[in-house]
Amino acid sequence: MTMEEILWKHILSVRQKSPLVHNITNFVVMNNTANALLAVGASPIMAHALAEVKEMVNISSASVINIGTLDEIWIKSMLIAAQEANAIQKPWVLDPVGAGASSFRNETLSQLLNYHPTVIRGNASEIIALAKVNKATTKGVDSTAASLEAIDAAKNLHEQYGAIICISGETDIIVDGEKSLFIKNGHVLMTKVTGLGCSASALIGAFIACIENKTEAVAAAMALLAISGEIAVQESNGPGSLQINLIDKLYNITKEEFMTHIKIS
Amino acid sequence: MTMEEILWKHILSVRQKSPLVHNITNFVVMNNTANALLAVGASPIMAHALAEVKEMVNISSASVINIGTLDEIWIKSMLIAAQEANAIQKPWVLDPVGAGASSFRNETLSQLLNYHPTVIRGNASEIIALAKVNKATTKGVDSTAASLEAIDAAKNLHEQYGAIICISGETDIIVDGEKSLFIKNGHVLMTKVTGLGCSASALIGAFIACIENKTEAVAAAMALLAISGEIAVQESNGPGSLQINLIDKLYNITKEEFMTHIKIS
Amino acid sequence: MTMEEILWKHILSVRQKSPLVHNITNFVVMNNTANALLAVGASPIMAHALAEVKEMVNISSASVINIGTLDEIWIKSMLIAAQEANAIQKPWVLDPVGAGASSFRNETLSQLLNYHPTVIRGNASEIIALAKVNKATTKGVDSTAASLEAIDAAKNLHEQYGAIICISGETDIIVDGEKSLFIKNGHVLMTKVTGLGCSASALIGAFIACIENKTEAVAAAMALLAISGEIAVQESNGPGSLQINLIDKLYNITKEEFMTHIKIS
Repeated sequence: MTMEEILWKHILSVRQKSPLVHNITNFVVMNNTANALLAVGASPIMAHALAEVKEMVNISSASVINIGTLDEIWIKSMLIAAQEANAIQKPWVLDPVGAGASSFRNETLSQLLNYHPTVIRGNASEIIALAKVNKATTKGVDSTAASLEAIDAAKNLHEQYGAIICISGETDIIVDGEKSLFIKNGHVLMTKVTGLGCSASALIGAFIACIENKTEAVAAAMALLAISGEIAVQESNGPGSLQINLIDKLYNITKEEFMTHIKIS
Repeated sequence: MTMEEILWKHILSVRQKSPLVHNITNFVVMNNTANALLAVGASPIMAHALAEVKEMVNISSASVINIGTLDEIWIKSMLIAAQEANAIQKPWVLDPVGAGASSFRNETLSQLLNYHPTVIRGNASEIIALAKVNKATTKGVDSTAASLEAIDAAKNLHEQYGAIICISGETDIIVDGEKSLFIKNGHVLMTKVTGLGCSASALIGAFIACIENKTEAVAAAMALLAISGEIAVQESNGPGSLQINLIDKLYNITKEEFMTHIKIS
Repeated sequence: MTMEEILWKHILSVRQKSPLVHNITNFVVMNNTANALLAVGASPIMAHALAEVKEMVNISSASVINIGTLDEIWIKSMLIAAQEANAIQKPWVLDPVGAGASSFRNETLSQLLNYHPTVIRGNASEIIALAKVNKATTKGVDSTAASLEAIDAAKNLHEQYGAIICISGETDIIVDGEKSLFIKNGHVLMTKVTGLGCSASALIGAFIACIENKTEAVAAAMALLAISGEIAVQESNGPGSLQINLIDKLYNITKEEFMTHIKIS
């Protein structure tokens, strides 16, 4: 099988296995995140109470922790969830929203990294900020391109914490130490819809819940979202209808659509 | 008048009276819930501050308490609201999201039940879990069908707490002690949109706020949502557009559409 | 340039400058608010943690504080943000959702007013309640029309706190002490979509972040939203599709559409 066929097989696998995915995420995107997970065939749980968060990690096949609207109370839930996921070897995704924007976020991220996320997904500036937070020396100090700096940051984060790093952007880049994968799908209008990065992290959660090869799982999730967005844009008048059409396409994308559009290397 | 005509009359009544409906609900569905209430003609209030929740119950015609994203802080608001509604005889709806998923949820539900919800709406597994939480002995231990077990659980809950129980699913079942009503509307694609159960509970809140006969009120709300969904599916490409088209149809459904589709027994 | 042309120029200015707008807003509207800000070209941040809210005010060009789902914890963030915005002279918008509905809201609003919002936007009853909260004597005690009473309330609030007051409704009224502007755009179906008032406040935030003349900034934001809604209604089957089409139109409205529809005096 080609890589493209492998990724499509993984999409079918998520549809079939319908994994339970636990989310502690931000208030802005909870509805969309739940709908994106449902659309690809997963079952979302949103739960953050201190008293039950361990149980939620245990009954789910993966957890997703997103610090978008972080506060002093929710931090505790995030740390308990991350600690539990690490302790019982459940895969989990860290979405470091706004890394670098405040010392509060940086310190929280520093603590979360100690619980070894399976995957970290952020945009280039978040990945770069995250690497700096943890004093990982950046190799590429002379890099002029932000994407090169982000790849260096991702490599450092991977070496230090063992996580697969996904840098999302015009080209999505997946760094796992051995190689880097590049997915050149998606559309610029997607940046005008709030929280599609958060949806990406949630979909990664659904895929690492089911798929043994975690790098392929991340690639399948990112390709699915980017291609669905690309197709949905064609039927959209703006970012409002794109948000809706994207959910529809995540749900009804066909193998032919996927194979025709995918650009991975 | 036939039952079908009575239910349509109740839908018109909500549109005309525009009841104020107070909600303490989960973060995932707040936007959709508010829009669903507006679409049927009600006025939503979302308010949970300890300092004002009693006033909100008092100025509203019904309250809806949904434990979807329950935590240690929001529990207090829910208990105050339920206690106040019970004390001043305002009708209120309990949506026991995730009953059985954690002891934290079960204990919270046990406390809320003490304040005698007018209606409890959940899916079969939630209603079964809720009956077990409160040691109501299940009559139908030999039942092989989940729906039969759920009906037994509903009857027990009704006997113990006096609430009307609505079990939502492929067939919605309303149990009030005297008889059971069965509504066979809706579409399977509705399960792929997050929070339509929560919308159902909120609409029940709007209907029990206005309608004297509470069983008819629940039936009207459930039939309206299920039929609107059924019609909306026909114009939808997937769960994204269904979420939108459902709100439109709740708003503009005609008597003819309602009467043509309704299957109640 | 005519006033209409000036307002259009301001819309282009926001698109070009893409201001960072900090929001502490309610759970119901966070997604829509973020999408409305993105659609007009601004960059939204939603952040409320006590530990970082000052930094967020500092890195943003304006803040928006909306008390819709106010509680005892979020109040603290709102007060810190308002105090900081006032201290460093960053423009900020107050949206007094539910003013008058509880003493808790009134007291909170009374405290927030001390930090001199640049703009206050509410509906007529909220503006009237807000003026009463602060014992501003209402001049127009004999006014029979609610809108006249609201304009008197707005004038009193402006005199006492220096804020520009925007009363939204069938006609949007902007009061800044010297004159009043009246915008007669929009459509009644917009009242059936939750949180469009909150979107209005957020867009005002984006415009006062960029535009020197704050009265013109408010007028441009209100005209843009009302006209976009008016046009979007024509393509909508109900409030569900209106919510989506409105975001699309905020994004792709043309000068011709804007100039053809605007009714300002």
